[in-house]
Amino acid sequence: MSDLLARRAALLGPGMATFYRQPRHIVRGEGVWLWDAEGRKYLDCYNNVPHVGHCHPRVVEAICRQASTLNTHTRYLHEGILDYVERLCATMAAPLRSAILTCTGSEANDIALRMAQAVTGKTGVIATDHTYHGNTAAVSQLSTRMPPIGGYGGHVRHVPAPDGLRPLGGEKGAAHAAAFAAAVQAAIDDLEASGHGFSALIVCPYFANEGFPALEEGFLRPAAEAVKRAGGLLIADEVQPGFGRLGRHFWGHQRAGVQPDVVTLGKPMGNGHPIGGVVTAPDILAAFRKAFRYFNTFGGNPVSCAAAMAVLDVLEQEQLPQNAERTGALVLEQFRTIAARHPRIAEVRGAGLFFGAEFVRPDGSPDAEFCAEVVEAMLARGVILNRLGIGMNTLKIRPPLPFGPAEAQMLADALADALAELDR
Amino acid sequence: MSDLLARRAALLGPGMATFYRQPRHIVRGEGVWLWDAEGRKYLDCYNNVPHVGHCHPRVVEAICRQASTLNTHTRYLHEGILDYVERLCATMAAPLRSAILTCTGSEANDIALRMAQAVTGKTGVIATDHTYHGNTAAVSQLSTRMPPIGGYGGHVRHVPAPDGLRPLGGEKGAAHAAAFAAAVQAAIDDLEASGHGFSALIVCPYFANEGFPALEEGFLRPAAEAVKRAGGLLIADEVQPGFGRLGRHFWGHQRAGVQPDVVTLGKPMGNGHPIGGVVTAPDILAAFRKAFRYFNTFGGNPVSCAAAMAVLDVLEQEQLPQNAERTGALVLEQFRTIAARHPRIAEVRGAGLFFGAEFVRPDGSPDAEFCAEVVEAMLARGVILNRLGIGMNTLKIRPPLPFGPAEAQMLADALADALAELDR
Repeated sequence: MSDLLARRAALLGPGMATFYRQPRHIVRGEGVWLWDAEGRKYLDCYNNVPHVGHCHPRVVEAICRQASTLNTHTRYLHEGILDYVERLCATMAAPLRSAILTCTGSEANDIALRMAQAVTGKTGVIATDHTYHGNTAAVSQLSTRMPPIGGYGGHVRHVPAPDGLRPLGGEKGAAHAAAFAAAVQAAIDDLEASGHGFSALIVCPYFANEGFPALEEGFLRPAAEAVKRAGGLLIADEVQPGFGRLGRHFWGHQRAGVQPDVVTLGKPMGNGHPIGGVVTAPDILAAFRKAFRYFNTFGGNPVSCAAAMAVLDVLEQEQLPQNAERTGALVLEQFRTIAARHPRIAEVRGAGLFFGAEFVRPDGSPDAEFCAEVVEAMLARGVILNRLGIGMNTLKIRPPLPFGPAEAQMLADALADALAELDR
Repeated sequence: MSDLLARRAALLGPGMATFYRQPRHIVRGEGVWLWDAEGRKYLDCYNNVPHVGHCHPRVVEAICRQASTLNTHTRYLHEGILDYVERLCATMAAPLRSAILTCTGSEANDIALRMAQAVTGKTGVIATDHTYHGNTAAVSQLSTRMPPIGGYGGHVRHVPAPDGLRPLGGEKGAAHAAAFAAAVQAAIDDLEASGHGFSALIVCPYFANEGFPALEEGFLRPAAEAVKRAGGLLIADEVQPGFGRLGRHFWGHQRAGVQPDVVTLGKPMGNGHPIGGVVTAPDILAAFRKAFRYFNTFGGNPVSCAAAMAVLDVLEQEQLPQNAERTGALVLEQFRTIAARHPRIAEVRGAGLFFGAEFVRPDGSPDAEFCAEVVEAMLARGVILNRLGIGMNTLKIRPPLPFGPAEAQMLADALADALAELDR
């Protein structure tokens, strides 16, 4: 272990983040389970990339079959990309009927920002002040974590991330949605006045990194209307909530009840095979292709498309979104029972298989330290999860979708046990 | 075919480039061969991504084995990425001993530019005026093809791409190298005066997109010295010339006789599996990690590393760089014989399995039209290649590396035949 850490620091650079106080050396995965090098088994309640389960045989088979047949680029014709894009777009409402395939969600958001530029002729973007949309130089400008060298471009405005427990303006309900929309409108006005102009609002429709706050139905709609009125695009970053994770709604924007102009995809799309994408209306895609020449060597290659198609097959055949809906409801119920006994839990929330519990101090302020202790205590019980949110005080639980009632029970039992220990 | 083209325009957007007047519908690949949907077989003299051959069984096996064992991210510990980075760095001179793995060459160059910013605290970059380094918003700023919306950032300076037949300043040899270095120095001075400051010169050390001009040995050295004197970094984009394609030199920068500070990798690295990377000195990597938080979900995952490791295995065991050296020399010899009979061929040039012939009009000016005819005439003979260069008048021939003497003969025979037909 210490040997691996030393090699890692030398070869990959110092300060490359690992998870947990004692990083884990994972060697095998299957379904919702992971094993480390010492043979220890973990219930994976964290990894959303192996969406239909670690090493799902059907996805592996699709990758192997296509990799041994042909893997080339999109300047030749191939049915793989056409069949996949057609099927993908059918899960969304018209006019979302065309796509560009990339290798990562970061590449997808990098394109989405340029689509908005192509349509509006402007460059200003609005994001929340606690979001993350990826790692390219352009997309990194949306994050507030660290000022880039040479400074921010001046074309980004941040609006306060919604917090269900601490709503903007102090009131929950319609007033919260109106306050958020007003912040978006103010940012639009400011961008227009600045000369950059307003091109897009980019949000995760589930506000995943913001801690997936419990918000009133239709929360995003007034903001989406402000965007539309101003002639900008609404970009829904579905890298985290998409592909049926939320249960009843296949996409986060469907759950939020808004129709985005551009939808970006990544992580779960190929069950770990590097594929991302941007879905949009044909006229927006045409505007982008006219304004920017774009070609992605690996994007949309036959193997990536085979992997992504297999993911859609498995989701359908194993009814995984339905399982996410059912199991998610079960977990929330169990978590609520636990929360009733634990005043440190301010709220239990989530949808489908993306849920968590928020920890606070007696005065209601975020308790990141205690949440970190819970994460480590869960790891000690063989349960892999993590934390996120504005105050980093909310458990981040997003297991592979084959996570069923038995695993839900294990997770709830482990949490109850971990809290009992920490409370002693 | 017309059905595929119509679906493609609807699903992927209008104006998405294809190769050839009649785009090909490729369905299978093996070694240096491709087959279309009608069962027609093509000698692949173009595709550099399937570096060790289309669907190489050893690479496919590595992908399948690892994909069915574990595919996760680098926040857990895994030997795959460490073993690979160690082996990769051993092919380069110290201090190039550490790396970041990405999914594409574009992502790699996007990082490389920020590494230069982190080390110098400045943002100015120099590239040639006929290059292409990738498709992210930041990297696209290096291209001169199309002004981005919102304009260029003002931090990029272009120097004239070297042209062996039309040297800057009119003289070949050391004078040409000095003229290029003087252009780089002028760009450095201009960036320093502009307030952006100078952070890096980014070049493909083989000047692949520029038409891989035949340059005097050590051509790049005076420019590299100017970069060093000014405190900037030399970024070698090895996406095209790297991994043994050039024969005797495993890397383009080794052939050019310069030591870059940062080396970027892409296309051939995983034989089509999406993987790219940035190799640099540990202190530069540390500066980058300190200045920018960077995490790439798919970058360096166990499956990508297994694919990339298998590529290095095959290169070594099948002695493919040695084959590139031998076969490349053979082709050039045959091409020179052809050129002696064809005044339209101004020059035959290249190294290893990256070579071509430049076509000119009687007055010596670039003949892109004739070159395009040659490309189509070769396709009609079942040979896949393309064209590139400042004047788009040079054949772009970069076959998978198992391309041997028999295939070299087929290629030369087809070219002689195509030219005979076009000359009639």
